[in-house]
Amino acid sequence: MAEPTKNSWRFKMHEIIYEADTPSGKLFDVVLLWAIAASVIVVMLESIKSVEVNYGEILRQLEWTFTILFTIEYIMRIICVGKPFRYVFSFMGIVDLLSIAPTYISLFIAGTQSLLVIRTIRLLRIFRIFKIARYLSEAQTLARALKASRPKITVFLGSVVSLVIIAGTFMYLIEGEDSGFTSIPKSVYWAIVTLTTVGYGDIAPQTPLGQMLASIIMIMGYAIIAVPTGIVSVELSNAQNKPELVTTQACPECSKEGHDENAVFCKFCGAKL
Amino acid sequence: MAEPTKNSWRFKMHEIIYEADTPSGKLFDVVLLWAIAASVIVVMLESIKSVEVNYGEILRQLEWTFTILFTIEYIMRIICVGKPFRYVFSFMGIVDLLSIAPTYISLFIAGTQSLLVIRTIRLLRIFRIFKIARYLSEAQTLARALKASRPKITVFLGSVVSLVIIAGTFMYLIEGEDSGFTSIPKSVYWAIVTLTTVGYGDIAPQTPLGQMLASIIMIMGYAIIAVPTGIVSVELSNAQNKPELVTTQACPECSKEGHDENAVFCKFCGAKL
Amino acid sequence: MAEPTKNSWRFKMHEIIYEADTPSGKLFDVVLLWAIAASVIVVMLESIKSVEVNYGEILRQLEWTFTILFTIEYIMRIICVGKPFRYVFSFMGIVDLLSIAPTYISLFIAGTQSLLVIRTIRLLRIFRIFKIARYLSEAQTLARALKASRPKITVFLGSVVSLVIIAGTFMYLIEGEDSGFTSIPKSVYWAIVTLTTVGYGDIAPQTPLGQMLASIIMIMGYAIIAVPTGIVSVELSNAQNKPELVTTQACPECSKEGHDENAVFCKFCGAKL
Amino acid sequence: MAEPTKNSWRFKMHEIIYEADTPSGKLFDVVLLWAIAASVIVVMLESIKSVEVNYGEILRQLEWTFTILFTIEYIMRIICVGKPFRYVFSFMGIVDLLSIAPTYISLFIAGTQSLLVIRTIRLLRIFRIFKIARYLSEAQTLARALKASRPKITVFLGSVVSLVIIAGTFMYLIEGEDSGFTSIPKSVYWAIVTLTTVGYGDIAPQTPLGQMLASIIMIMGYAIIAVPTGIVSVELSNAQNKPELVTTQACPECSKEGHDENAVFCKFCGAKL
Repeated sequence: MAEPTKNSWRFKMHEIIYEADTPSGKLFDVVLLWAIAASVIVVMLESIKSVEVNYGEILRQLEWTFTILFTIEYIMRIICVGKPFRYVFSFMGIVDLLSIAPTYISLFIAGTQSLLVIRTIRLLRIFRIFKIARYLSEAQTLARALKASRPKITVFLGSVVSLVIIAGTFMYLIEGEDSGFTSIPKSVYWAIVTLTTVGYGDIAPQTPLGQMLASIIMIMGYAIIAVPTGIVSVELSNAQNKPELVTTQACPECSKEGHDENAVFCKFCGAKL
Repeated sequence: MAEPTKNSWRFKMHEIIYEADTPSGKLFDVVLLWAIAASVIVVMLESIKSVEVNYGEILRQLEWTFTILFTIEYIMRIICVGKPFRYVFSFMGIVDLLSIAPTYISLFIAGTQSLLVIRTIRLLRIFRIFKIARYLSEAQTLARALKASRPKITVFLGSVVSLVIIAGTFMYLIEGEDSGFTSIPKSVYWAIVTLTTVGYGDIAPQTPLGQMLASIIMIMGYAIIAVPTGIVSVELSNAQNKPELVTTQACPECSKEGHDENAVFCKFCGAKL
Repeated sequence: MAEPTKNSWRFKMHEIIYEADTPSGKLFDVVLLWAIAASVIVVMLESIKSVEVNYGEILRQLEWTFTILFTIEYIMRIICVGKPFRYVFSFMGIVDLLSIAPTYISLFIAGTQSLLVIRTIRLLRIFRIFKIARYLSEAQTLARALKASRPKITVFLGSVVSLVIIAGTFMYLIEGEDSGFTSIPKSVYWAIVTLTTVGYGDIAPQTPLGQMLASIIMIMGYAIIAVPTGIVSVELSNAQNKPELVTTQACPECSKEGHDENAVFCKFCGAKL
Repeated sequence: MAEPTKNSWRFKMHEIIYEADTPSGKLFDVVLLWAIAASVIVVMLESIKSVEVNYGEILRQLEWTFTILFTIEYIMRIICVGKPFRYVFSFMGIVDLLSIAPTYISLFIAGTQSLLVIRTIRLLRIFRIFKIARYLSEAQTLARALKASRPKITVFLGSVVSLVIIAGTFMYLIEGEDSGFTSIPKSVYWAIVTLTTVGYGDIAPQTPLGQMLASIIMIMGYAIIAVPTGIVSVELSNAQNKPELVTTQACPECSKEGHDENAVFCKFCGAKL
């Protein structure tokens, strides 16, 4: 498909759909955002029995309205983008497809499949929430900080997992089945509930020794939470202090370094980089 | 209304009510702070049945005392402020009105309206707590840091909301109605209770698969909390290192920028800004 | 009482009791630390019924041993300190007295008073834990950071208290008595349990509207916790980067500033400050 | 045992086992990591009754496979390391031994000992999870930050422990046995559950006074968590800004200091350090 020339209808559509600096582009974005939110709410409401019984028909009609709207959006995006295949197989392209496919599929398989399969497919529509990712442009700094923290966070998660496995095994030995610690996996589940300070209370230690070990785990969990927080704080601070990425590229003329990422000419001697 | 001249009684009253650097001004502030706290406690006590039965009469008398006190304060503020209309429609003006209106309204509507309406109107008096906002001058640095963090916190909240919706839908599929996950909104409520590490325990996963997913959500919640903390830390650090706000105002003479907020003359050429 | 001269027995005792750089001084500290910990454990064990029944006699003997030990320590501290009255009325002096007084008092009042008074007085011995404060010299940097954060933390706590009062009042209106929200104070208690992510689950919202409001409170609590963390991080960072306090005092001779807090002479011209 | 010469089979084995920069070394690491994870899962699965009944035989066979694999690894590590004794008594050497010993021991003691002893010994195999520590090389920065924070974290933990003991004693006095606060240790357990925001809800205050004190503890816990977070943030920030450790060693020739940890020659005069 040829690159859309200026003033052509495809170029105009591209501007409306992919950019937000024209009034019609902004309107498109706002309408779409509301449609995404509304369609997610419809999926959620459908799962409430009393709502389904009373307003099922309206919800199904709304569902089809949103599906058709998102289908038009999907087709338009394919038509007016420069490289359609790249879009279709990109993360956003798959999300856009996933947000319309379940409604069509449920149309064909109804009656021939078990209820669970239908319900699962229909609930896949909840992935529409990811369509919102397109509008979270501010997420970049956060993403960069999290990416830079990844090795440290992996170590942190590895330590937490080791800790809860050891703690769970000890609690299984100390408390036993009478207190609800029926197996190691269940004890590990309890250790996670405790260490992360969630604390449901469905399983709780009954013996003094178990409560003592639980206290130690809690205070450790209380102190451990400081670690990921510290990591992300430091990375965010670094990510913000270096808002412009400086490349390691050296000027071919004067060999000076420190050029910005978007620099085309050397800022010291003016030679093309 | 004319600007109050010095030594006039309106000017003196203005100093007492709006400023805190004279002894009478300080006394006014302290009395008002105690009155606010006491009146909020009265509203809270009224809702306890045994207290209402035994001390109802005293509480109603106290209520009227505070209402008359706040009414006098409200009228005095209107009289001695330079621009009364601006005050009346400002945030603090509305709070001041809201803190006296319910008592008067409940006087007129008693008997003619349903009990719930009366109760709701009477409980509106709790908004008196916002009168305290006037005395939290230290809140500025915090507010500035939070304001600067807003786009990042929006992204963060958006991600959290998306996450709990996806997690809630999966738990609805996995656990089903037997474990209390009766609908997606209820499952999302559970996911919020879990991710924020509140963990009531009124709904808790029962199946091994559900407990495994719950464990992942908990550990994610445990790690995710690091993000807003990191954001606010960095912004607070920035807000404190730049205590003086630099305006974007340019000098009309030399066009140089970077003047402090309280600058009257250009610091480069001396021209009046 | 005269200042103890070197080599006198009072001077030697002072070194043993108040300082830790001689072997006997270190031994004294270690023995005392263990005695504090052991005596606190004895008080705690006494409250367990089955332990009291079986080992009551031993615990009472241990209790008297510790009391006599702490009494000797208290008398020795009074004897060998330079200004005994200042010590007696200092925080540590009162703690030292409080940690021995209850045992003697309970000796005299036994039989003549109600059981609750005796129990309360006996439990006052738990304040012995504060004797440990003497050994937490590292606490200074922390204390400085917390002190510097105080105005911001006051604002933070004020906002949290306002928030839970408003949230509790709304929940009282929405949920009502059927869900356990029997009064505003109880609803405020629930709001604190929820906002701080403790989440006992003894009171939990039952209506969809209540659960929606609860979700908002939880996510706010999840985001709000970032604020004190950010404040303390920034203050700790400042406290550590400026370990020496620089006074704003100017030299009377050369008028240069930037003298350390403990400086006696100007570091630029040598004049007495 | 002599230092292995290059090209000898012991040198090659050393490269495979202890280093990860050759393809076979990488393969060895990946296989071992999977074996560790799988063997831990087997131990956990064995504790689930229904799994033990149905798949007990397979699990026991897998268990012996992993034990033999780890035994070969252990023997190979001893053979090809330069100083075998140092390895055997190092942390990793003991972990490696602990991860194989329980299976052999349970073979000999079966039938002659009580069930609890066997179960405890068999569960010791869970310590295999520590074998993973070898692969967490990124943990160094974290460990350095935590080490530097140790005195402050000790003070923090000391304060938390003092606080929960005082709070627990008061709650024991206020609530008494009717609300589940049957002894001081149990009340302290409750105080830990509350302060760390875990909040099981198995013990919860019932009286208004108890709920008021509980609210104060919760808000304190909410504010206190900021302290370890701040400490670790600052230390991590420091640890990262000074990635190279500078020794305090002075050059024997020119007496200049500030040499890097890995420096062999003085960087100022070139003399050997």
